[in-house]
Amino acid sequence: RIMRPDDANIAGNVHGGTILKMIEEAGAIISTRHCNSQAGEPCVAALARVERTDFLSPMCIGEVANVSAEITYTSRHSVEVQVNVMSENILTGAKKVTNKATLWYVPLSLKNVNKVLEVPPIQYTRKEQEDEGKKRYEEQKLDRLETKQRNGDVILPVINPEPHTVGYSQSSLIHLVGPSDCTLLGFVHGGVTMKLMDEVAGIVAARHCKTNIVTASVDAINFHEKIKKGCVITVSGRMTFTSNKSMEIEVFVDADPFVDEARERYRAVSAFFTYVSLSKEGKPLPVPQLLTETEDEKRRFEEGKGRYLQTKAKRQAQMQQAAQ
Amino acid sequence: RIMRPDDANIAGNVHGGTILKMIEEAGAIISTRHCNSQAGEPCVAALARVERTDFLSPMCIGEVANVSAEITYTSRHSVEVQVNVMSENILTGAKKVTNKATLWYVPLSLKNVNKVLEVPPIQYTRKEQEDEGKKRYEEQKLDRLETKQRNGDVILPVINPEPHTVGYSQSSLIHLVGPSDCTLLGFVHGGVTMKLMDEVAGIVAARHCKTNIVTASVDAINFHEKIKKGCVITVSGRMTFTSNKSMEIEVFVDADPFVDEARERYRAVSAFFTYVSLSKEGKPLPVPQLLTETEDEKRRFEEGKGRYLQTKAKRQAQMQQAAQ
Amino acid sequence: RIMRPDDANIAGNVHGGTILKMIEEAGAIISTRHCNSQAGEPCVAALARVERTDFLSPMCIGEVANVSAEITYTSRHSVEVQVNVMSENILTGAKKVTNKATLWYVPLSLKNVNKVLEVPPIQYTRKEQEDEGKKRYEEQKLDRLETKQRNGDVILPVINPEPHTVGYSQSSLIHLVGPSDCTLLGFVHGGVTMKLMDEVAGIVAARHCKTNIVTASVDAINFHEKIKKGCVITVSGRMTFTSNKSMEIEVFVDADPFVDEARERYRAVSAFFTYVSLSKEGKPLPVPQLLTETEDEKRRFEEGKGRYLQTKAKRQAQMQQAAQ
Repeated sequence: RIMRPDDANIAGNVHGGTILKMIEEAGAIISTRHCNSQAGEPCVAALARVERTDFLSPMCIGEVANVSAEITYTSRHSVEVQVNVMSENILTGAKKVTNKATLWYVPLSLKNVNKVLEVPPIQYTRKEQEDEGKKRYEEQKLDRLETKQRNGDVILPVINPEPHTVGYSQSSLIHLVGPSDCTLLGFVHGGVTMKLMDEVAGIVAARHCKTNIVTASVDAINFHEKIKKGCVITVSGRMTFTSNKSMEIEVFVDADPFVDEARERYRAVSAFFTYVSLSKEGKPLPVPQLLTETEDEKRRFEEGKGRYLQTKAKRQAQMQQAAQ
Repeated sequence: RIMRPDDANIAGNVHGGTILKMIEEAGAIISTRHCNSQAGEPCVAALARVERTDFLSPMCIGEVANVSAEITYTSRHSVEVQVNVMSENILTGAKKVTNKATLWYVPLSLKNVNKVLEVPPIQYTRKEQEDEGKKRYEEQKLDRLETKQRNGDVILPVINPEPHTVGYSQSSLIHLVGPSDCTLLGFVHGGVTMKLMDEVAGIVAARHCKTNIVTASVDAINFHEKIKKGCVITVSGRMTFTSNKSMEIEVFVDADPFVDEARERYRAVSAFFTYVSLSKEGKPLPVPQLLTETEDEKRRFEEGKGRYLQTKAKRQAQMQQAAQ
Repeated sequence: RIMRPDDANIAGNVHGGTILKMIEEAGAIISTRHCNSQAGEPCVAALARVERTDFLSPMCIGEVANVSAEITYTSRHSVEVQVNVMSENILTGAKKVTNKATLWYVPLSLKNVNKVLEVPPIQYTRKEQEDEGKKRYEEQKLDRLETKQRNGDVILPVINPEPHTVGYSQSSLIHLVGPSDCTLLGFVHGGVTMKLMDEVAGIVAARHCKTNIVTASVDAINFHEKIKKGCVITVSGRMTFTSNKSMEIEVFVDADPFVDEARERYRAVSAFFTYVSLSKEGKPLPVPQLLTETEDEKRRFEEGKGRYLQTKAKRQAQMQQAAQ
């Protein structure tokens, strides 16, 4: 698909959210197809989790996005999909890897949305593939349990905030869920949610550093709760941490089934997005330091620093491994 | 929400219709939420009327629109909502008020769309708030009755019109109502209708003066008739009046439920839009005078002049009051 | 890409225009890539012509569209692309051919849009492939010259038309060309134009027979004139012919570069669309006969009948050939 002006910011860089949406659509197609490949109850694959995703190089208006997806592991009730996105400049022929993402889907019955069906097993060419997949499966399962605890936080408005404080850049948007946002089951596509999250996180980042910003990475996102057609969703973001050249933004998605009295507003998803600030030539710019005021803000800053250092250490370990 | 290229004209000014659509969505959410806040039949708030709205300053691509809504009055069967729109340049931090709008909603039962439900009363902090709200309620009720009479007019085509005549710039479009245009009840969102109306009015204005034009204000709009999913709607506009620096365009919306033979095509909405013409530097330009030919056109021109002078007098009175 | 509610009519059938738009995007990508595959001036491939296209089976909401494109012939200044569309029901795994289309593109210089560049030749595996391609090239060239003559017609409005007359169902829409409608050169994508044409033709068909209608085929479309960003385009359609079970609708696209006073409104494209009417079970329904009134309408009806009989004869010849 050719990238259009509406897919990009004013500097012409395609929004990370647009890319996440394409990735999720590819993942939903391949896993729904796989889960229906054996006779049995028809089902729709619902996004359960996206692993941490790095945006390796920005995509621009007019480039073509090539998205390819492959199933790499199946457990009894879940499917792991790896999606690669390449950007292609069809004028010069240049191709670049934009990102590689790993997604987990769960098949839900078309007749009874609360019933999780069984996944037909895939064939592995080597035994190690299965073992490594199983290890990834166990890891993500643990991590999902953890985030389920953490979900209670709320973003409160601040009056007359100072520049570079948390309150100064925090933002939120509301969106009324329409039919084209939803799957056949009438629940919001995970990709639609991620696109809105990236939109809010991008506004927070731009408010903080007042320059052209692009998505650098997204931490693992767990989808604990489905969001139904007709809900109002509120997406809120606040900055949690800044390093010299990056910003970390926490984003919450709350769903409000406001015509359905049976259910209260609830937290559907939360995630951390990392942004960098770019000059007109595409070089990373220094980021103004986040001013933390309350105890909670200071604690979140330290936690963000922990995540930042951990990621940095991991990346260095990978580079050393690759260099050997 | 960040303003995108498709939200704006080629000069980069966001369409008034895009702003009206955001305003209406915010109003629909807050009033639907309020009307469902007490136990009882679930309902969806349907737009009944938008008061006259002025566009105080143009919004541009890349700016963030901040929309806030508040319920300011409730009668037995209707809700008054005030919506403020601020545009924020996230690069400079500059904020401007774009508009303030007042909308009236009516709760319709989710089970029986022809049943109007009761509205839970709001608490007023001062008795005067309630009295003033009641006064506004009575005024709009009267005005709604009046427009109901006026709705019969039709725009007739003209062959080979001269420049600057009414026939030269008149325009119409048709639109097939899709699922994303509709509320949970399957009727077109008022905001979608207003966006189409602004689109036609803008084309009429641009055809007349062949320059960059922006919406300056919209007169009160009454929504007497719902429009159902699957209808074809015809939106037509003709110029009625020009002052030195503004143009007034009358817009009609007709709905044609063409797969439902039981019902004939009917007039759903009509309204007056005012546009100004801007130079590349954003300064108002003189507008070519409208050439009226028939008796009807001359009468409508005089009526438009009446509305223009009345609005001007009101504004001067307000400014004098504010200056005291 | 998964088909969404917004891509389809209320009976759930995907609009022919949505499919034509996907086809054209695939064609534009593959031919732009090919024309830039050798060192030289960068260029963008612009749609010059789409051959007659049959819609073999309807596509539905929730199905996945698989679009594949291949370059099948190159002349000195043009590229022939064949595009196949398959619809896949990912729940059952069923796949069906939706259509096969042939498109012709011309490479325009990115620096000077009026300069047509040379096309790098492709390699043919067999000599006959080249000869057959050349024959198709010569045929389409002749046909393009012919339609260039025919383009002068205008659709005149009718007051109070009777049901089933030409005037009763004729329709037109206007559309302001936005940035997302355009290629890198700032001209409207051929696929966007075809989608609007199908929208108008579908409304004409539905107004005539007041049932669920689907696109059955589109006659060859020639794109003689580019349409620039910021133009207003008027798309008008009128019924020309009805057989027992099909309707032929002629569609005109006129572009009005209204901010650019140097150029008058001009005819950009015209084409014939054929529709069938379907029952709730998807069976073709009889179509009410078109009532022709004027001499011109009678002449166009006879011409439409000619095209209908010619197509029918060709199809029978193909079926006999296939049966041998």
